[in-house]
Amino acid sequence: MIIFDNYTPVDGGVCAANGFTAGGLCAGIKQGSTKPDLAIIYSSVDCRAAALYTTNKVKGAPLVVTKEHLKNGKARAIIVNSGNANTCNANGLEIAEKMCEITARELRIDPDDVIVASTGVIGQPLSIEPFETHIPLLATELTRFGGDRACLSIMTTDTRQKQFAVEFMLGGKTCFLGGICKGSGMIHPNMATMLCFVTTDAAINAETLDKALRFVNGVTFNRVSVDGDTSTNDIVTVLANGLAGNTEITSEDSPEYEAFVGALYAVMVNLARETARDGEGATKLLECIVSGASTDTIAASVAKSVIGSSLLKAAIFAADANWGRILCAIGYAEGEFEINKVAVRLQSNAGEISVCAGGSGVPFDEDTAHEILLEDEVRILVDLQSGDCTAAAWGCDLTYDYVKINAEYRS
Amino acid sequence: MIIFDNYTPVDGGVCAANGFTAGGLCAGIKQGSTKPDLAIIYSSVDCRAAALYTTNKVKGAPLVVTKEHLKNGKARAIIVNSGNANTCNANGLEIAEKMCEITARELRIDPDDVIVASTGVIGQPLSIEPFETHIPLLATELTRFGGDRACLSIMTTDTRQKQFAVEFMLGGKTCFLGGICKGSGMIHPNMATMLCFVTTDAAINAETLDKALRFVNGVTFNRVSVDGDTSTNDIVTVLANGLAGNTEITSEDSPEYEAFVGALYAVMVNLARETARDGEGATKLLECIVSGASTDTIAASVAKSVIGSSLLKAAIFAADANWGRILCAIGYAEGEFEINKVAVRLQSNAGEISVCAGGSGVPFDEDTAHEILLEDEVRILVDLQSGDCTAAAWGCDLTYDYVKINAEYRS
Repeated sequence: MIIFDNYTPVDGGVCAANGFTAGGLCAGIKQGSTKPDLAIIYSSVDCRAAALYTTNKVKGAPLVVTKEHLKNGKARAIIVNSGNANTCNANGLEIAEKMCEITARELRIDPDDVIVASTGVIGQPLSIEPFETHIPLLATELTRFGGDRACLSIMTTDTRQKQFAVEFMLGGKTCFLGGICKGSGMIHPNMATMLCFVTTDAAINAETLDKALRFVNGVTFNRVSVDGDTSTNDIVTVLANGLAGNTEITSEDSPEYEAFVGALYAVMVNLARETARDGEGATKLLECIVSGASTDTIAASVAKSVIGSSLLKAAIFAADANWGRILCAIGYAEGEFEINKVAVRLQSNAGEISVCAGGSGVPFDEDTAHEILLEDEVRILVDLQSGDCTAAAWGCDLTYDYVKINAEYRS
Repeated sequence: MIIFDNYTPVDGGVCAANGFTAGGLCAGIKQGSTKPDLAIIYSSVDCRAAALYTTNKVKGAPLVVTKEHLKNGKARAIIVNSGNANTCNANGLEIAEKMCEITARELRIDPDDVIVASTGVIGQPLSIEPFETHIPLLATELTRFGGDRACLSIMTTDTRQKQFAVEFMLGGKTCFLGGICKGSGMIHPNMATMLCFVTTDAAINAETLDKALRFVNGVTFNRVSVDGDTSTNDIVTVLANGLAGNTEITSEDSPEYEAFVGALYAVMVNLARETARDGEGATKLLECIVSGASTDTIAASVAKSVIGSSLLKAAIFAADANWGRILCAIGYAEGEFEINKVAVRLQSNAGEISVCAGGSGVPFDEDTAHEILLEDEVRILVDLQSGDCTAAAWGCDLTYDYVKINAEYRS
């Protein structure tokens, strides 16, 4: 059980935790743009580190290098660029390794303690030159207030900065945990396509950190879909530097483990929801909450199926209560359940309405339903009426702009 | 092995085979429209019948009734409406049964020999009244030239009529096999969302007909995706009335079985391709041909993954050779294969170009690639270089109009 109420939101994003600095600048990787495209996140002391990677067989070269570097569960810095995914390039590994080397040299740390990530167009040649020139400059500009710049620098088609941080207590010590993330298109479990970097000053060992990350990722980023495309460059990392001074959490049985997971969940679920809200071309956040499932797996499968339906997403764009499409998407979710028991309600700040009960339509006022769906956060509540398990998933509407953005991505 | 060259295309669609008549008219089911929305297909003698149904847990009431009626592998007529899917309605079964009864009464056949199907909006109340009024009229209008009207009457968001028929030989006898289908949105294996009705005058027993249909459906409609949504009303049926006078095909080992399968494939692959081409809002037919796979399953999985990628489909709409998205989609296909061996070429009537070899990009002329992708039929050739198995799949581009059509479907 996750404890949801043990934290307070704070500013600072990825630099909210003690000992972390960051920065970002324009290195000219986004061609013809003056937007920042290179970021560093740095801890003044060694961190325990955990990471999760895309399940795509095509993996960006940076992921391969990062995986190698994190074998010892230890890291100090993250170097990340946008504008080029460094994926499917013949010299990709070489460039990713070189990015780590330059960063390590400038920060006077071990290259093996550097995490590297890239996002942008796949299969576009990338030269080491912008990194040679700009990493040294960037390394001198890292500050406690640089989380914002770092967050800006990892954006591609994102329209909003996505960052969140919380303060929480572990064994009487005040801790901070915060993160930034990017992701807008090519978003699908597992894992929602994105880069996500979380930092904390809590003390937790690498193995337990990995368990916490896997669990929380499973109920946050693995529950987000924008377009059903699983990217080649997904990575979620957490760095924990222990500066909060709490007694190190060394197992899931530790009394502080649940509080830590609660804080990690608070940050990651916020970032996951914001990623869905910022889906390419989206005008609405779509949240599906499934209850009454006989297993967690079925609950999650139904929730993901609903938020993944292109037809439903287009209807939601038009605020059209075409609930048959919800039932259709529930019907092709995996897992056994009785469709004849299913009840569906639509909910938003404008109200709530029942549209389906016992698997069949119920009379409802179309105008009221339309008002509910006009809001920019829409919830679809599905009750399977066959158990006690619940799950949530997040998506967005499908709009003209999704097509526009992706038809013109490289131009 | 399918024999592809033993048939000649002919006119007549679902009435090309001897003994079949059809017709269609406007029964007012499509509200506020004067388009035809009710069709009957009828055989002058008993037919062997086989059918396949949606895998969605939500099943249109007509499918439940049809399944019951086809238990004996025998049928004479098909009654079908568009404009309302008769799905998720409390009185759906009653209406579907009544549709069969009225049709049977008018055609003087057994209600159990009637196949019923519906397509359109899900969860919209449907009254028996339009059927009471119009089936008797329609039953008097069935002709050998009515295939066209029937084809028109089953369309919803379809923009083209989809019908095809062939002449072929079985044991020295001339046979005909033809079909009509509808499908444009909510198209995804299994099974491409649609209604498909095939008729033939070949003699084949029900069990063997069922086998042939399952096999051919697996490599045609199960390889089509428009939007990833598996519908609640998919049905494919074949009626075989035996009037061609060939010796009845009674097993897969029968010498004529392959020729029959070849003819069925010719018709169904044509209809499947046309369904993809007519995908909601589509401007292009997208065909992915995978070769060099170690198993048929992997070949099919890769082909379906490629044509299913929203990101790739948006890029194809803009004729943008963003091949990284092809590789990305290959990378999340199920099944084990080495991504580092993959080669990708783009092909159309305007030419062919290699864009990726050994899993990495190769230099190519963007203008040439753009020219190739501007054509209205685009092929993506993927060579996995790890075996001899091949597969094809069909989809379309993702356009503004897909969003427009689905945002406004009910208005």
